[in-house]
Amino acid sequence: MNSPITASLDLLSSTQEVEAELSKLLAQRTLRAAAYGTHFSELWNLASGRVLGGKMVRPRLLLGAFDALTSAQGGGPVFRDSAFRIAAAIELLHYSFLLHDDVIVGDLTRRGRPNLIGSILQSRELHSPKDLHWARTGGILMGDLMLSLTHQVFAREPLPEALRTQLLDLLDHTITESVVGEHLDVGLSDSVIPADLTTVLSMSRFKTATYTFELPLKAASILAGSSSRAEGPTGEIGRHLGVACQLQDDLLSTFGDPREHGKDAFSDLREGKETAIIAYARMTSAWPSIEPDFGNPELSDSAARHIQRLLSQCGAEQFIRSLIDDQLRACFNVMASPESRVPSQLARLISGIATSLEDRRS
Amino acid sequence: MNSPITASLDLLSSTQEVEAELSKLLAQRTLRAAAYGTHFSELWNLASGRVLGGKMVRPRLLLGAFDALTSAQGGGPVFRDSAFRIAAAIELLHYSFLLHDDVIVGDLTRRGRPNLIGSILQSRELHSPKDLHWARTGGILMGDLMLSLTHQVFAREPLPEALRTQLLDLLDHTITESVVGEHLDVGLSDSVIPADLTTVLSMSRFKTATYTFELPLKAASILAGSSSRAEGPTGEIGRHLGVACQLQDDLLSTFGDPREHGKDAFSDLREGKETAIIAYARMTSAWPSIEPDFGNPELSDSAARHIQRLLSQCGAEQFIRSLIDDQLRACFNVMASPESRVPSQLARLISGIATSLEDRRS
Repeated sequence: MNSPITASLDLLSSTQEVEAELSKLLAQRTLRAAAYGTHFSELWNLASGRVLGGKMVRPRLLLGAFDALTSAQGGGPVFRDSAFRIAAAIELLHYSFLLHDDVIVGDLTRRGRPNLIGSILQSRELHSPKDLHWARTGGILMGDLMLSLTHQVFAREPLPEALRTQLLDLLDHTITESVVGEHLDVGLSDSVIPADLTTVLSMSRFKTATYTFELPLKAASILAGSSSRAEGPTGEIGRHLGVACQLQDDLLSTFGDPREHGKDAFSDLREGKETAIIAYARMTSAWPSIEPDFGNPELSDSAARHIQRLLSQCGAEQFIRSLIDDQLRACFNVMASPESRVPSQLARLISGIATSLEDRRS
Repeated sequence: MNSPITASLDLLSSTQEVEAELSKLLAQRTLRAAAYGTHFSELWNLASGRVLGGKMVRPRLLLGAFDALTSAQGGGPVFRDSAFRIAAAIELLHYSFLLHDDVIVGDLTRRGRPNLIGSILQSRELHSPKDLHWARTGGILMGDLMLSLTHQVFAREPLPEALRTQLLDLLDHTITESVVGEHLDVGLSDSVIPADLTTVLSMSRFKTATYTFELPLKAASILAGSSSRAEGPTGEIGRHLGVACQLQDDLLSTFGDPREHGKDAFSDLREGKETAIIAYARMTSAWPSIEPDFGNPELSDSAARHIQRLLSQCGAEQFIRSLIDDQLRACFNVMASPESRVPSQLARLISGIATSLEDRRS
């Protein structure tokens, strides 16, 4: 899918080096898995086979920022091999989140392809409820293994104790906030948590911004040996960029051209996804005319287009655009402020991503 | 529940020191959780509140073996503080396995008390399917956090690099085998994997023996700075003891006195639990008369007692007893062999546990 997050990938390094690192990590385990018999070996091979071939957004963001920071320093303590291994581990963390999210949401596909659960069922032509339970169990267990493997990479990285501890703190912070974000997201869609704007915005920040932008950028500045002072701004920058990206993604999948964003048109409306757009609309006089059809899986295209118009007319679309502007402005302010000392090379990378976001508006 | 595994606990140190260590670990996170609002904070408090108060079998086994090994050495490199933190982390690992197992099995109780999922529902008086989904999601996410916290403790332990790496290898090995065991167990009960004796015995070994006996004993010998040569036997000893314990547990819950083992009498028969006893019975001429009632939740007590008699008459009970004898003999052989160099203090502890297992037969 061509989301705002991936729109700016041409700014970043290729996936090849990260894929090579990931393949090395997984190959060792593939040998070990074989020793535990066909059932586990099949599961491992299905799961590990799906790690490669993605866009590797997070690893590439880490490496792009790392190169920008180290070239700015012109030397100094540099751990480029570590950066590749940590980048690979971050992709494994992302995958473990997806594996458990698929179990939680109950999906058998992701981006139109069978996910791990779907492919376990396909691979053995299984169909019964017990088979589905067995396949979902595979999703939980492989998520646990990938989460463990992520930690193993961070824990073993041959770095000065201080840097490794900073990375472990960052991993800890990231996993906690991602768990908080997933917990809010599920609470919102299960209607256990009321969908007010503040809650929905925190959810987007914790579920997406923290591990997709804050984690790679902070990890890059730790690995580049930037002073702990410089670690602050990369975190802030990542947070603002990440929230802007998520909001832009919500706008696109509600108002955008499906050929561009790759999802079903109106799928968010049919699923009743609690986005910031909807949270704003709930506070307007338009909501009573939107609510009856919101989350109706049978929603017709014409009815969906009507809701689209209502969401636009009630000011929700404009409000979200202004929120994105605020986030991007805050991001640029951080980079502009002298005490944040963001090197121009990193500022160029960030501005490029921010601009590619703005370009996606039209 | 008074299982064979816990029968020998009076041989081991009290839970107090481990509980103190765990409380310290959890307290830091409780403060952090509060910063993420009431929903997450409630979930964290429910989850972390259930870590304490257990029998702490695994941590106490680790500390018992650690004290035996270090007193045998009369000094040498000793890391008693580390032993307490690693013991606490092993309890967190156990808890994370239970949290995900409860999601997988779909239970709302454990040992007759509400588990985390059950207590989330109770705490908010939730009842709908969406509420149950929300509560199960809490189980998955808290399992992920506890698994991450376990790794954080291992990764940060201030030990010589070589020892910390040995512990990380051990954690890695343990989690992999426990995942393999859970995957086999669910495959057996979902009838995706045929229940032959070899598979059922591997399942018991991987799911229970590895993390309940092998992990604490190996961790103890690593922390006691015993040579890597001495690390071998503790692993073997743990494996034999662990399998013996699991088989003894199966015998007790099938043939034993419910007042002793604390489970419902006949619950294994009513659930259709694929134990080694059943795997043996399947190979005998008695099976056709057992099969129709096996796994029938409505099974009457008299019908269950009839199956009990058939399982005994067909030789299954005797066969499992002989398997337990084999495992215990193998365990004693390892300790007796001169090249394994098991110090007498550790041998006494292990023999005590083995004997308390044998005592449980009558």
